[in-house]
Amino acid sequence: MADERIVPVIMSGGAGTRLWPLSRAARPKQLLALAGDKTMLQMTAERFAGWASAEAPIVVANARHADEIEAQLAEVGAAPSAIILEPIGRNTAPAVALAALIAEPEQLLLVMPSDHFIAAPERLREAVKAATSLAGEGWLVTFGIAPTGPETGYGYIRRGGPIAPGVFAAAQFTEKPDLATAEAFLSTGEFSWNAGIFLFRASAMIEALRTHAPEVLDATSAAMAGRARAGLIALDPDAFARSPSISIDYAVMERAERVAVVPLDMEWSDIGSWDALYDLLPKDSGANAASGDILLEETEGCLVSSGGPVVATLGLKDLIIVATPEAVLVLPRGRSQEIRKLVEELQARRHPGVS
Amino acid sequence: MADERIVPVIMSGGAGTRLWPLSRAARPKQLLALAGDKTMLQMTAERFAGWASAEAPIVVANARHADEIEAQLAEVGAAPSAIILEPIGRNTAPAVALAALIAEPEQLLLVMPSDHFIAAPERLREAVKAATSLAGEGWLVTFGIAPTGPETGYGYIRRGGPIAPGVFAAAQFTEKPDLATAEAFLSTGEFSWNAGIFLFRASAMIEALRTHAPEVLDATSAAMAGRARAGLIALDPDAFARSPSISIDYAVMERAERVAVVPLDMEWSDIGSWDALYDLLPKDSGANAASGDILLEETEGCLVSSGGPVVATLGLKDLIIVATPEAVLVLPRGRSQEIRKLVEELQARRHPGVS
Repeated sequence: MADERIVPVIMSGGAGTRLWPLSRAARPKQLLALAGDKTMLQMTAERFAGWASAEAPIVVANARHADEIEAQLAEVGAAPSAIILEPIGRNTAPAVALAALIAEPEQLLLVMPSDHFIAAPERLREAVKAATSLAGEGWLVTFGIAPTGPETGYGYIRRGGPIAPGVFAAAQFTEKPDLATAEAFLSTGEFSWNAGIFLFRASAMIEALRTHAPEVLDATSAAMAGRARAGLIALDPDAFARSPSISIDYAVMERAERVAVVPLDMEWSDIGSWDALYDLLPKDSGANAASGDILLEETEGCLVSSGGPVVATLGLKDLIIVATPEAVLVLPRGRSQEIRKLVEELQARRHPGVS
Repeated sequence: MADERIVPVIMSGGAGTRLWPLSRAARPKQLLALAGDKTMLQMTAERFAGWASAEAPIVVANARHADEIEAQLAEVGAAPSAIILEPIGRNTAPAVALAALIAEPEQLLLVMPSDHFIAAPERLREAVKAATSLAGEGWLVTFGIAPTGPETGYGYIRRGGPIAPGVFAAAQFTEKPDLATAEAFLSTGEFSWNAGIFLFRASAMIEALRTHAPEVLDATSAAMAGRARAGLIALDPDAFARSPSISIDYAVMERAERVAVVPLDMEWSDIGSWDALYDLLPKDSGANAASGDILLEETEGCLVSSGGPVVATLGLKDLIIVATPEAVLVLPRGRSQEIRKLVEELQARRHPGVS
């Protein structure tokens, strides 16, 4: 196994509203302390802190969040070599391209979302170690999570033949299957959830982009032209806007030749809904997950989260209640995927509670 | 019937938390727009506006609310002759005593709570007319509401023999009976709810206080000593604090000789709980009573009230949800009497959400 040094790339461009009203455009999920005292971004940065092989990270972020990201990383002593500021969101392919362009061609990049939960980062480290040599040889390595159920909200990766101990050729990518398909996937034992974590040599990714997504490479190269390779990096907004908005999975991983998958059996969550967060959080004796200023009487099985107001409940069961000074959400547990309806309605009204 | 002129006395000393978190010490029920665009205080002031026989009202209020009360009354063009400011709350007997002391002895005072709902004030006016002559003769007249159910949260008045058309001797006062007692009361047909509305000659009330509650009369007289009889009237706080804290019902009405009751069959509510307010408010096609910035999806039978944040709900049934920027309350309909537990717990913690 090569003793390669690895550059973590923290992808912080998301501006999702799936945890509305706590998450919103101005304060997305990665900037919130959802599963502990630290924000998801801070937990992501600290995930590499103890790795002898890790260099200073590169962060790719929405320009709107630059100050907050710098402040949060400073709080946990994380010193990124560069923070690349995207003027608009263009999904993950341009973000990965930017990181590959700013790195030295020979460097190994470990790309990670900033807003996912990983209970045991040491397992990820072992998996990264197992794949380092292959990445050094030019393979694009993905990491797959052992599924715990037929989730329809995730992408799935099917493993093909083994190519190294614990590493397999990636045979198929499927985004968000229907329930029957997901159940069929699970029954084969050959599928992992796509965790959005990738390991590759910068030059290999650039070659793959040149082959499979040249518009992405051209636009990001132009957006970076003449920029420094360290510190806060503001892109040329017009050039960057010319990139298609496309995921790295769809632009490259599903199409490239030498793509590997390392299956990982570890607790992981993309915290993609209030129900997913409820599953993750510790519960009190009444099966309530409470965070913030909360007073519960005769309340069971509820997720109650406040980003400000005191929330007082009495006689409730299996509800999700989330409060901020600007907005309050109440719905039954199990239906949190449907908050999209509410958020879209508020967006249509240009309501300040979603901005 | 004498053509007496009547001075409305608006009792605005309450600082209840039964509609917490919308109502709180700093912003009690009478200062809220609960059942329309106007506040309960404004609706109370306007109740007399069209009466040819009504003089400018006297207001007895908590000193803490002086500015808000003046502003709210000015908004509806109500010009009280005096606003008596209580430095602390001492229940209704001292408040009634203050009004009786500031009035001319011969004046008829019509005392009314500032935080009750009356759908048809013209019925009350008719009842007041019917009792004016007796009040002029020195009777202390109460007004009773025809009960619509065996409520245990109200006071009851039993009527005795008739003393004038529509007016009866008051034979018995019972505060907050248990359910069996309330049911027995209703079965007799002789009981009314005590609406806290009283009509009397100022001199008659002072005589009754002298006989039945001399400490109240002494303390309030001392608190008023040397004060003007118009405008904002600040009491001597030490003198006023010496008054016992006691209701006018208990101090005088239950004990005095010549007490009458005028039964009234009209829609009335003391809005003593969120459930009481739900009963009162207009509902949408899903039987929801919503006020403020609210977005309801698949929601039925809910009271949703916001004093600030947007409240978005999905898939709910028969809940009470009340939100302010500082506090959020969620509980099932039918249990709103129990919010006392929550408020007391927050008070014990000296939580700012109840101050």
